[in-house]
Amino acid sequence: MLKLDFHPSGRHFLQIPGPSPVPDRILRAMSLPTIDHRGPEFGALGRDLLTKIKRVFKTESPVIIYPASGTGAWEAALINTLSPGDRVLMFETGHFATLWQKMARRLSLEPEFLGLPGVEGWRHGVQADMIEARLKEDTHHELKAVCVVHNETSTGVTSDIAAVRRAIDAAGHPALLIVDTISGLASADYRHDEWGVDVTVSGSQKGLMLPPGISFNALSDKAIAASAKAQLPKSFWAWDEILEANKNGYWPYTPSTNLLYGLNEALDMLEEEGLENVLARHQRWAAGVRCAVEAWGLEIQCQDPSVYSPVLTGVVMPEGIDADEVRKIIYERFDLSLGMGLGKVKGTMFRIGHLGDCNDLTLIATLGGCEAGMKLAGVPLKGSGVTAALDYFAAHPMHRAG
Amino acid sequence: MLKLDFHPSGRHFLQIPGPSPVPDRILRAMSLPTIDHRGPEFGALGRDLLTKIKRVFKTESPVIIYPASGTGAWEAALINTLSPGDRVLMFETGHFATLWQKMARRLSLEPEFLGLPGVEGWRHGVQADMIEARLKEDTHHELKAVCVVHNETSTGVTSDIAAVRRAIDAAGHPALLIVDTISGLASADYRHDEWGVDVTVSGSQKGLMLPPGISFNALSDKAIAASAKAQLPKSFWAWDEILEANKNGYWPYTPSTNLLYGLNEALDMLEEEGLENVLARHQRWAAGVRCAVEAWGLEIQCQDPSVYSPVLTGVVMPEGIDADEVRKIIYERFDLSLGMGLGKVKGTMFRIGHLGDCNDLTLIATLGGCEAGMKLAGVPLKGSGVTAALDYFAAHPMHRAG
Amino acid sequence: MLKLDFHPSGRHFLQIPGPSPVPDRILRAMSLPTIDHRGPEFGALGRDLLTKIKRVFKTESPVIIYPASGTGAWEAALINTLSPGDRVLMFETGHFATLWQKMARRLSLEPEFLGLPGVEGWRHGVQADMIEARLKEDTHHELKAVCVVHNETSTGVTSDIAAVRRAIDAAGHPALLIVDTISGLASADYRHDEWGVDVTVSGSQKGLMLPPGISFNALSDKAIAASAKAQLPKSFWAWDEILEANKNGYWPYTPSTNLLYGLNEALDMLEEEGLENVLARHQRWAAGVRCAVEAWGLEIQCQDPSVYSPVLTGVVMPEGIDADEVRKIIYERFDLSLGMGLGKVKGTMFRIGHLGDCNDLTLIATLGGCEAGMKLAGVPLKGSGVTAALDYFAAHPMHRAG
Amino acid sequence: MLKLDFHPSGRHFLQIPGPSPVPDRILRAMSLPTIDHRGPEFGALGRDLLTKIKRVFKTESPVIIYPASGTGAWEAALINTLSPGDRVLMFETGHFATLWQKMARRLSLEPEFLGLPGVEGWRHGVQADMIEARLKEDTHHELKAVCVVHNETSTGVTSDIAAVRRAIDAAGHPALLIVDTISGLASADYRHDEWGVDVTVSGSQKGLMLPPGISFNALSDKAIAASAKAQLPKSFWAWDEILEANKNGYWPYTPSTNLLYGLNEALDMLEEEGLENVLARHQRWAAGVRCAVEAWGLEIQCQDPSVYSPVLTGVVMPEGIDADEVRKIIYERFDLSLGMGLGKVKGTMFRIGHLGDCNDLTLIATLGGCEAGMKLAGVPLKGSGVTAALDYFAAHPMHRAG
Repeated sequence: MLKLDFHPSGRHFLQIPGPSPVPDRILRAMSLPTIDHRGPEFGALGRDLLTKIKRVFKTESPVIIYPASGTGAWEAALINTLSPGDRVLMFETGHFATLWQKMARRLSLEPEFLGLPGVEGWRHGVQADMIEARLKEDTHHELKAVCVVHNETSTGVTSDIAAVRRAIDAAGHPALLIVDTISGLASADYRHDEWGVDVTVSGSQKGLMLPPGISFNALSDKAIAASAKAQLPKSFWAWDEILEANKNGYWPYTPSTNLLYGLNEALDMLEEEGLENVLARHQRWAAGVRCAVEAWGLEIQCQDPSVYSPVLTGVVMPEGIDADEVRKIIYERFDLSLGMGLGKVKGTMFRIGHLGDCNDLTLIATLGGCEAGMKLAGVPLKGSGVTAALDYFAAHPMHRAG
Repeated sequence: MLKLDFHPSGRHFLQIPGPSPVPDRILRAMSLPTIDHRGPEFGALGRDLLTKIKRVFKTESPVIIYPASGTGAWEAALINTLSPGDRVLMFETGHFATLWQKMARRLSLEPEFLGLPGVEGWRHGVQADMIEARLKEDTHHELKAVCVVHNETSTGVTSDIAAVRRAIDAAGHPALLIVDTISGLASADYRHDEWGVDVTVSGSQKGLMLPPGISFNALSDKAIAASAKAQLPKSFWAWDEILEANKNGYWPYTPSTNLLYGLNEALDMLEEEGLENVLARHQRWAAGVRCAVEAWGLEIQCQDPSVYSPVLTGVVMPEGIDADEVRKIIYERFDLSLGMGLGKVKGTMFRIGHLGDCNDLTLIATLGGCEAGMKLAGVPLKGSGVTAALDYFAAHPMHRAG
Repeated sequence: MLKLDFHPSGRHFLQIPGPSPVPDRILRAMSLPTIDHRGPEFGALGRDLLTKIKRVFKTESPVIIYPASGTGAWEAALINTLSPGDRVLMFETGHFATLWQKMARRLSLEPEFLGLPGVEGWRHGVQADMIEARLKEDTHHELKAVCVVHNETSTGVTSDIAAVRRAIDAAGHPALLIVDTISGLASADYRHDEWGVDVTVSGSQKGLMLPPGISFNALSDKAIAASAKAQLPKSFWAWDEILEANKNGYWPYTPSTNLLYGLNEALDMLEEEGLENVLARHQRWAAGVRCAVEAWGLEIQCQDPSVYSPVLTGVVMPEGIDADEVRKIIYERFDLSLGMGLGKVKGTMFRIGHLGDCNDLTLIATLGGCEAGMKLAGVPLKGSGVTAALDYFAAHPMHRAG
Repeated sequence: MLKLDFHPSGRHFLQIPGPSPVPDRILRAMSLPTIDHRGPEFGALGRDLLTKIKRVFKTESPVIIYPASGTGAWEAALINTLSPGDRVLMFETGHFATLWQKMARRLSLEPEFLGLPGVEGWRHGVQADMIEARLKEDTHHELKAVCVVHNETSTGVTSDIAAVRRAIDAAGHPALLIVDTISGLASADYRHDEWGVDVTVSGSQKGLMLPPGISFNALSDKAIAASAKAQLPKSFWAWDEILEANKNGYWPYTPSTNLLYGLNEALDMLEEEGLENVLARHQRWAAGVRCAVEAWGLEIQCQDPSVYSPVLTGVVMPEGIDADEVRKIIYERFDLSLGMGLGKVKGTMFRIGHLGDCNDLTLIATLGGCEAGMKLAGVPLKGSGVTAALDYFAAHPMHRAG
């Protein structure tokens, strides 16, 4: 029997920016017996889910649910809309934007990777003016899509997607707008229809508080039209057969039944609390965590306050400190998992996730573990972050609508 | 709150040929809290899983685990080994072989679909001599792969894969052998290495007794070599990055953590019982179920006793009876799900799954539901199948090794 | 790690007359995190439970819920209402009536044990006329209580409690009427108020479909008045402090929180299905099971059809057959637990439970296991019980109200 | 559907001194299907449990497991060993000692309630010298038992039971020594045999980390001998029939099966970690929490450092502050349950539980909630307790044996 918890007592604090802590209620829902995916109960489940999921994306258009993890939904968005050799404009906001760009290249597309120089791009959001300028140059409309990451999980930056939409419109350019909000959905404000997004990519294991394993493409009419002409070979990811089967609440092949039970529960939880309350809750937590970082006298990875992420905060270590060494001490001594620095920022920062099934004290515990661990690792701290966050939370009670 | 069971009391009998009934022990394992997929506990889990899964495929080569359902693993097998326009030889054994062939076409391959004429192919297994003859004709080795279904879930036929291997060898042909045993693995005898299979495709929701959502490619050196040259665009399914990350027990992108908990438990259960005992158990059940069909005086879909499936049995309805109407009565009156006839045999037969977490009395209940439902539907029965199966099970106790 | 299932695959069939099979839904509810039994959430739970539980007993009076198993509630009923040396009239219907009478004696009461001679009393219900006659003789009202078992779990007899009430009234006797319906509640028709019962004793692990561990006393005003004068020493079982604390939904000491979660779920399930539907469902199952016993050519333990139990059926073995040997074969070969013969009928019969979270096919499986096991044990059977029951269930669809 | 969590997101912090937070692993174990309490699997479970439980009490004598909550085990200890009118010497250490003494009176015993004057007794442990003096006066041995509470849950005082044993021996008095360690077992050092205890009373919902519902009497030969002569009426609690049935791993009446599954898991967890490690873990937590109270400049309820409880810490509020008002703010704002002041200390203090399935960060969260809540309630604090505790935990890593 494999023992999966290396700490002797208590519950692990999973404060990485996803997978987020899964509520017991969802784990319990997922343990319902698997049913026949072609039977009448499944159809009722499917129809209910496919309706409710739209409200989270704020769209009237169909949302595809894949029995595959988020990386698959990235691939699906590209494969359904594009053809071999197509040029796409992608923007470098961090590690995940970079990985998506590599995927595009593997899929025989020709991505153009725009961004601020060096590590600067990893400390700011998408620069809509750069996109606008580039699109204006593209008078022959060779760029078929603009691909941006809404909430860059590697840095803690939530870009302004409405601004990207305005940039495309200002350029009068027909490119599709494809957005990854894998780590933003249901934690950061997101509006598929209002922002004119053509394909939104998302996953289960962040704001939806599910284990990883299912993922999403929210569509637009323009995206569906594009998919009819797109030439990349596709079968598993193909929207057409899924859209057809979804009309009755079914899928063309076996869906991930028990994760769909969890999704159903997650959607009910979001509706019970109210999506706007959920978003405000994340903003409040993020503000409390930033108070802590400021009290410690450390830098936040994101340098532009207007795009601070409500989902996670990157904490930059002083010169000479290995962030992964700090994380290791915190994990071993305090049973707390934090996100590592990825790609260009490996070893220079760590990430605190503040999303999903948490509460104020979960974050106080998290900040406590960070504070004690950094001290043990020799990080010089100006003051106590944990008391600063406590004061912030005490002074700012959550006001709920509904 | 969506109610997912339309029957007022008791436990549903899920006797379709997959998803199979999931043991409580696996459902419980899946409800463990999600952990960090980049942390040390996950690495320990990954290394353990990747070792244990090989024993079920009977291979020394790597097994890829996808966070995607079985249809995805079909696609992965083709995409990793083949190039646009490649010709592949596929054999029509039933609905799933047909769907796989359609997928190959969508992926820009050129499948050649060999088979017995009409519905005959759906009542027999793969005809190795036909494959041998076709390969011998292919003197220029234009056929890059031979794709066959081991256990055809739509008909209840388990083909002889060793014979296919011999046929390829007899023709001295270099084609890859790609086998789908999605519904055969861990229920029907399967030997990846001994039979010289290059890629074996499988899924979680059949003999492994998991919910759907993860799937497998077992590889060979020849398949890995082929993947280095194959030209179909690939990223999510690409073996290379997965094999690299798997060396340490990790995945290049987020794996389906909680389904992997379930897989870990399933593999432990198979080892505790002993894989040979598991296979013998399924053979014994299949024999009991066939006794029932014989007692009813009905035909079995599979007409060749040497390839009867140990996993499921197709029951052919007499002329004039709509099999789906019979299934509907059985579902509504007896809370029992059976498999429908698919494709060419829609409405003419139904399928009884006898796999996974069952026991003799589960099958007696199932046969009882079939018997009563068929009577209600006006199917003329020669005798009682349920008592015939009871007699068979009583007369043939399970002998266990180990 | 202790392995608790001695059979290698599938789900055990627990067809004893309690503990009954616990629905997954209840097991899941019981796995909610334990909460503070003095906090506001607990008060809300308690108030809700204490209201809903009354409807199952069909009473307007308070129902006490003990954090103790059913035997404790037997003791509580006696201890709260009686004084050392008090005479009580008890009626011998079987093993549980006998045990209750022994308990009364251990508690320093003086039970008088009325009944039909020999094993006859174990094949019939309570004889109200005998009670009436005895009470009429008791002109000094020395008998303080009449104690009867509603559903005698050891024999499968459901006595007529209304007739006992009429007998007491006809005798004009002031004795309290104390009734054990541990195995009858929520499976057999029961009416605390209408039948003028003073204390009803029940438990969790039968019709309520919970694991064992909590139990009940439903009260009357007369019982509460009696408790104020009763002299047996009492503390844990004492109604007074519990009634006081229950007013706000709390208990004077720590209640069995997680079993109360299960009770809450069970009460919701009963209300969703409708209690009258639940009772009809049990009657229908009992009729089907009796068809099987008749087809086998065996005797039912209960000889009076007017008091056949809807909850369980006792099956008498022919002379020379050891019923426990039959049960052992059935358990080992078919993973099915049946109830043993207890006390005077040990070895001469076994008991089939048909209660709680079952459906038609569960019972078909059960009867199948009995039939095959009896054959293996050499019991001569006239015909097939399992097909007789199938025919009965097919011919008698369940009609539901509401 | 009753909603049982009044906070919208995250996991409740249950930091009362019992019920303690139940590990998921135990909740999962409890959700195994209920089995036949007279079948072979149950016997195996029972034998295993009855052996393992002895090691936690550090006894070679039998341990009785009741399907009833802890208050029942209090009653059982008295009822099995004493007779109506027996005098017993009890010692007032707080609210639970007081309740036990009331119970003794209700059970027709004559308790003599020794203690320090006024509220003093609630801030110190058992005074063994007072017991010795009293026993020496009792030259006719009218006192049949000495009853003391080991870990007084209402105050946070862990008395020296070995000293009580020495006092009884020094007085040469034959009284039984009956000890309540309901909240001490498996968290505070306890040695039934070495300390010569005759009956130890305990429960499930504290150090054993189970939900409430089962409880214990650990016996001595002397206690068993006393039970043969004791005259209080007893049946449900009677040791004799239980001891007899326990020989084979069974119970005379239905045990609380699913809680026993949880107990089995809890005992395995304690053995895996090592009981001495578990005890050291609690001592370390208690020291950290006391650092926090000191940093706040508040008083600890227990005034004698030699008997500080490792299980909980009582925090005394300054004059003019209503402790229950503070608790209410903490509960509502921070989703944290603390123990209320009971009896003589109602409103003057609150209690922090630091037991069971916790870790350092759980307690940091708890102290954070206390600190912020006290500030909001206007409690003047000298400094930050949460940072003091963090520093303590960082400076004192847990050293583990084995």
